[in-house]
Amino acid sequence: MPVNFTPTAREKLLPIKGVSLGITEANIKKPGRKDLLVMVVDEGAAVTAVFTQNRFCAAPVIVARAHLESVQPIRALVINTGNANAGTGEDGLTRAGSVCRELSALLACKPEQVLPFSTGVIMEPLPVEKILAGLPSCVNNLGKADWYDAAQAIMTTDIVPKAFSRQVTVNGQTATITGIAKGSGMIHPNMATMLGYIATDAAVTQDALQAMLHHAVAHSFNCITVDGDTSTNDACVLIATGQGGARVSSASGDDFLTLRDAVTEVAASLAQAIVRDGEGATKFMTIQIEGGKSAAECRTVAYAIAHSPLVKTAFFASDPNLGRILAAIGYAGIHDLDVAKLQLYLGDVLVAEKGGRASAYREEDGQRVMQQAEILVRVLLHRGEVAATVWTCDFSYDYVKINAEYRS
Amino acid sequence: MPVNFTPTAREKLLPIKGVSLGITEANIKKPGRKDLLVMVVDEGAAVTAVFTQNRFCAAPVIVARAHLESVQPIRALVINTGNANAGTGEDGLTRAGSVCRELSALLACKPEQVLPFSTGVIMEPLPVEKILAGLPSCVNNLGKADWYDAAQAIMTTDIVPKAFSRQVTVNGQTATITGIAKGSGMIHPNMATMLGYIATDAAVTQDALQAMLHHAVAHSFNCITVDGDTSTNDACVLIATGQGGARVSSASGDDFLTLRDAVTEVAASLAQAIVRDGEGATKFMTIQIEGGKSAAECRTVAYAIAHSPLVKTAFFASDPNLGRILAAIGYAGIHDLDVAKLQLYLGDVLVAEKGGRASAYREEDGQRVMQQAEILVRVLLHRGEVAATVWTCDFSYDYVKINAEYRS
Repeated sequence: MPVNFTPTAREKLLPIKGVSLGITEANIKKPGRKDLLVMVVDEGAAVTAVFTQNRFCAAPVIVARAHLESVQPIRALVINTGNANAGTGEDGLTRAGSVCRELSALLACKPEQVLPFSTGVIMEPLPVEKILAGLPSCVNNLGKADWYDAAQAIMTTDIVPKAFSRQVTVNGQTATITGIAKGSGMIHPNMATMLGYIATDAAVTQDALQAMLHHAVAHSFNCITVDGDTSTNDACVLIATGQGGARVSSASGDDFLTLRDAVTEVAASLAQAIVRDGEGATKFMTIQIEGGKSAAECRTVAYAIAHSPLVKTAFFASDPNLGRILAAIGYAGIHDLDVAKLQLYLGDVLVAEKGGRASAYREEDGQRVMQQAEILVRVLLHRGEVAATVWTCDFSYDYVKINAEYRS
Repeated sequence: MPVNFTPTAREKLLPIKGVSLGITEANIKKPGRKDLLVMVVDEGAAVTAVFTQNRFCAAPVIVARAHLESVQPIRALVINTGNANAGTGEDGLTRAGSVCRELSALLACKPEQVLPFSTGVIMEPLPVEKILAGLPSCVNNLGKADWYDAAQAIMTTDIVPKAFSRQVTVNGQTATITGIAKGSGMIHPNMATMLGYIATDAAVTQDALQAMLHHAVAHSFNCITVDGDTSTNDACVLIATGQGGARVSSASGDDFLTLRDAVTEVAASLAQAIVRDGEGATKFMTIQIEGGKSAAECRTVAYAIAHSPLVKTAFFASDPNLGRILAAIGYAGIHDLDVAKLQLYLGDVLVAEKGGRASAYREEDGQRVMQQAEILVRVLLHRGEVAATVWTCDFSYDYVKINAEYRS
C-alpha cells in the first residue's frame, strides 16, 4: 500500500470552471476499467506543457508537441492508459493523429487543437479502433465526470488515484487549482512527469503560464525517482481557463509568485504521491543535499543515493547499513569531493563525519530512524551554499514482482 | 546458483613460481570460515595494481596506493573478508597500517612492502586484533595453501570461488598465468574490480606490466555491472614473478601482446564469473552496442540498459517486454540519437527498427530467446564504427533478499 498517503476525497477536489471531463471504459487493455479520459477546455483558456527528454519519446508526445507549436489554441486533451504508443515508429504517429482527428470531429474543432497522451506498455500498436469507439461516450459523458474520476481513468500500476486542490487569493480574487497525476514505475522524470494535469481558473498569460509550469516541475516532478528509468511518455500540462476572476498578466510580481507557488505545491503533492505509491514502496525517503557548490552537484549526489539498489534494499529491510550511502556519495562523480569534510545525517542522527562513522553514533539510533516509514537522509557537503532535494522510495520484493509480471 | 558457471577444479589451477599463499580462519565476521589470505611474492617480482575511483575509497586502498608509490618493492599482500575498512576515517588508516606492520615483522620486510586489502561491510571498525592474531597461522601455512584455497578465502556473498589459469608461449618459453577474484554485489567497477589478483611467472618490466593490467581491466572488470554500485574497495593486482623463463621487456611487440591478451583472457573470465555469480542472478546478459561514434557513447547506452531495473526484472521474468530496452536507450543521454536509424536484436532476432517494432518480429521469437539463461542484446546505432560490450545479470527476488538480509 502507498506510504502515508490517503487519496484526497472526491468532495475535496474542486472543479475548475472552463474545464469539462469525460471518461469511459474503452477496453484498451482489460475490460471493465476506466481507461479513456477526454478533457475539454473552453475557448480563451491558455495551455502549456512539458514533455519527456527520452529520445525514444512516444508518438503522442511528438504529436502533442507539434500541436502546441501550431497557432491554434488548444481545446481538448485525450488520454488513454493500457498502451503507451511508444517505440511504434511512423505507424504510431498515424494512430495518434487519427485519435486527434476523431475527437476534433466530435467537438467541432481542428485536429491541431487536440493534445493526445498515452501510457502503458511500450512497443505494441495502439488499439486505435477501441479508442475511436470509446470517444463518443467520453464526449457524451462530458461534465458528468469529476477530477476524482479523471485521476482514476489515467491509472496504470498505480494503487490509488492522485489528485489535489488548492485555493489562493490573487489580486483580491480566489484562484482555484486542481491537478491530477499518474505514475508508479518507470519514474525518473526529466523535465516532466509520467502524466500530470493541473488546471486553474485564473487568467494567466502564456509566458507567465510557461514560467509557472517550468518552476513547478523543477520543484516537484523533476525531484522524484522510483527506479531511475525515464519514461518515453512523460508529460505535464498546465491549463489556465481564466473563468474565475483572478488574473496574472506577467511572469513576475506578487500575483505571479502567489499563483506559481500554489501551482508548485499542487505539483509537489502529486509528485510525492507518485513516490508514495511507487511500485512496491514501503518507505518514503527525502534525500536532502546541502552545502554544495551547485544545484547540479547536489542533485547528482542525491540521485546516486536514490538510485542505488543497495541503499534502497537496506531501507526496505530497515537495516542501518549506512556505509552503502557513503559508497553512493563516493561514486556519484564529484571528482574533488573531500570525504573528510562531509556529514551524513539520518533524521536527526549524525551518522558519519571525518570520513567515517561519527564517534557518538550508535547502531540503535540508526535502527530507530530506519524503522520509520518516512525517512530524511541529509548530506552536508560543506563545499558551498546550494541545496537540492530528491524524493524516492525503497526497493522491495514487490517491485521485482510487479515488474516481472507486468504484462501477464 | 551461478549462471552457467562451474568453478575451475582445484587441480586445473596452476601454481605460479615465486608466489606463496597462506590462509586461515581469523573469525573476522563469522567463525569457521577462511577469511584471511596472505600472498608472498619472491624478491625480483614486479607488482602493479589499479583501484576504485570511488571518492569514499577504503583505508586499505589509500594505504596500498601509498605503498605502491614508495620505492620499496612489494613483497606481500594481505586480504581479509568480513569487513571493508571503508568509511572509517583516520582510525581505518591506523588499523590498515598496523596490519601491514605486523605482517612485515613476521616476514622480515618493511611495512611499505605490504599491500593491504579488505572487503565486507562498510563503516564498521576493522577488527584488527583478530587479524593480527590470525597472521602467524597464515604465515605458517605459506606454501601449503593453493589458488583454490585463496579464491575461497576472499569470498563474501560469492556462492562459488572464482579462479582461472592459462598458459601461453612467450619468446619460446611457457608463461603461466593464474588469477582469482571475488565479488557478487556492489559491482560496477570503475578502473578496477572488487578484488582480483592475477600472477604470472613471466618476467615483465614495470611499464609493460602496468600497460598490460590497464588493458586487461579495460576489457574485463570495467565491462561488468551487477547493480550499478561502484564499490569503495575495488582493487586488481597483477604480479609477474619472473621465475618461469618467459620474458617481456617492453610495452610493445609480439611477446607483450601475447602475454597481455592471455592476462586479459584470465581477467575477462574472472569478470564474467563475478556476473554469473551476481547476487540473485538467474540470467547472464551480454550487452553489445555497435556502430557508435565513440566507445564512451556505446558504453553509456550499454550501461543504461544494464542498469535499468525494469529491463533486469523483465529478463528475470523471461518476459520479452523489450520496449523497456528502447526506453533505456532513449534516456541514456545521446542527445542527437536518431531512433529511426537504430536496430535492436535479441540473440539473432531483429526486434526493433525504424523507431518501432520490426515488421517481421513475433512475440514467440522474443520469448524463445528470453527463456535462455545466456542472452545477447545487440544494439546497432548506425552512427559510426565503434563498438563496446558490457556483461550483466538480471534482477531477482533473491537480489532484494540477499541485500535486505546482508548484515543479519
